[in-house]
Amino acid sequence: MITDYSQRLIVQEVSPRDGLQIEPVWVETADKIKLINQLSQGGFSRIEAGSFVSPKAIPALRDGEAVFQGIERRPGVVYVALVPNLKGAQRALESKADELNLVLSASQSHNKANMRMTREQSLVAFNEVVSLVRGSSVSLNGTVATTFGCPFEGRIDEDVVLRLIDAYQELGMHGVTLADTTGMANPRQVFQLVKRVLTQLPASQLTLHFHNTRGLGLSNVLAAYEAGARRFDASLGGLGGCPFAPGASGNICTEDLVNLCEEVGIDTGIDLPHLLTLSRSLPSLLGHEMPGQVAKAGRNCDLHPVPPGNG
Amino acid sequence: MITDYSQRLIVQEVSPRDGLQIEPVWVETADKIKLINQLSQGGFSRIEAGSFVSPKAIPALRDGEAVFQGIERRPGVVYVALVPNLKGAQRALESKADELNLVLSASQSHNKANMRMTREQSLVAFNEVVSLVRGSSVSLNGTVATTFGCPFEGRIDEDVVLRLIDAYQELGMHGVTLADTTGMANPRQVFQLVKRVLTQLPASQLTLHFHNTRGLGLSNVLAAYEAGARRFDASLGGLGGCPFAPGASGNICTEDLVNLCEEVGIDTGIDLPHLLTLSRSLPSLLGHEMPGQVAKAGRNCDLHPVPPGNG
Repeated sequence: MITDYSQRLIVQEVSPRDGLQIEPVWVETADKIKLINQLSQGGFSRIEAGSFVSPKAIPALRDGEAVFQGIERRPGVVYVALVPNLKGAQRALESKADELNLVLSASQSHNKANMRMTREQSLVAFNEVVSLVRGSSVSLNGTVATTFGCPFEGRIDEDVVLRLIDAYQELGMHGVTLADTTGMANPRQVFQLVKRVLTQLPASQLTLHFHNTRGLGLSNVLAAYEAGARRFDASLGGLGGCPFAPGASGNICTEDLVNLCEEVGIDTGIDLPHLLTLSRSLPSLLGHEMPGQVAKAGRNCDLHPVPPGNG
Repeated sequence: MITDYSQRLIVQEVSPRDGLQIEPVWVETADKIKLINQLSQGGFSRIEAGSFVSPKAIPALRDGEAVFQGIERRPGVVYVALVPNLKGAQRALESKADELNLVLSASQSHNKANMRMTREQSLVAFNEVVSLVRGSSVSLNGTVATTFGCPFEGRIDEDVVLRLIDAYQELGMHGVTLADTTGMANPRQVFQLVKRVLTQLPASQLTLHFHNTRGLGLSNVLAAYEAGARRFDASLGGLGGCPFAPGASGNICTEDLVNLCEEVGIDTGIDLPHLLTLSRSLPSLLGHEMPGQVAKAGRNCDLHPVPPGNG
């Protein structure tokens, strides 16, 4: 807590992809485009705008091409696409994504369940994507899912994560994301791992992706920031659940994170009032309440009138 | 984060009082007694079991006498009662409460709105309670509400809080609680204030009471623990809302706090599986979902089977 809060924290907004991914309601392409355009006006430098996976696997995001073709490209904003393989990468490049995000799991059983292949096979497939992208201006990010714990295997050995980061670096990835896919991380573990990772990777290439499944999302952000991490995924309204925990939260909530930063004095460059207005529009778009808290409670500076008769 | 996690964290369970206080549904006296008795079996050393305020002001807790008379007193558990004034203190003593908890606000306007008197008048009234209790085995705790922010006034000057702690010490209070009544605290502020308070008050006499209204409850606990605080209020299931933020969370959730402690290696002495079972019974008792997360998500060690076909 004797921390230097002067370093900017970069928020990558993931609601259009990770947030909408498991929503049971179909969100119209026009509404997705509108959401991304409104997010672009909020001060984000990075937005994960969609994915190019099989429409059968994730029907909610089957309109990736139309979304990427329909959005206004705001200068200074990097529009990221999740891609699972070469075919997805080709679609993403045709749709002019600025960055491709590839995912494998630190846990072998989770990788097999999610990707139907081993981690080693995933890395071979990623090599094809690297070859495809080489020479273009498109950058590549590699995500390590289940970094902090796997719902099948439990705790993951730090060395496994470090070796996968090595493999990503050898492939020539420009960035690495460590993801707490099902919200199993704790601040002590996060601090230790991030400290270690930053000895082999500069902070500018590292993103942390936390879920609030067990209420520790923002505590984990603070621990990672204290350890030197500067870039974090978050989702408007806390959109995006956890398939293993019906009713529990998924992604950490963007406006709650930005509010935390403002309260402790960390700059994010993001327009919090704009974000709150946007977040408050999500329940009517999606038909349910969001887990985010600040959209309900307001900011600290939104004071209330003293009840009458108490002057 | 380079913290010594070896010191026990003491949880004071407040769901029977602060949690039930604003529930719109009437909870039968027998159900309150059952809840407190079940909590007593969970390893808590302190339970805020009820209050002796005007039944008109807080009808949900109008059965304070019957609750205190009906519960089984488990050896080693301190049963605390909230009392607003001399009359409440007399009722609490007759009902054999082990400790009386008195509350005033750091914010003058909040004190006037809540207590219909100034902070100075509150302190005079508390002096009557001190005289009443003197010579008995009953201990007194003084709470400073809105320590970290007031919904009417905003940020509270640290010196105001320090002076109120002084006043409580001069009155002979055995303990002091610093309460973030409407969830306005942030970890940086908490760390700084707790460090300062602990220069004039031993950690064994200090309790922190955080609300999760803006998602920072557990981050604030960690910051206070790092600064040396050891005793925290929490409420089963996160029971208890915030009157200024409909739909937002109130008290931090006991089982989420205990889970955090177990994950980082802080001992609490509390039986988490027992707590989870209890918490999962609250929705049927109260007719709505609870904000607590671990009761929905399970513990990290509650692993899931690998989906078939992925061996």
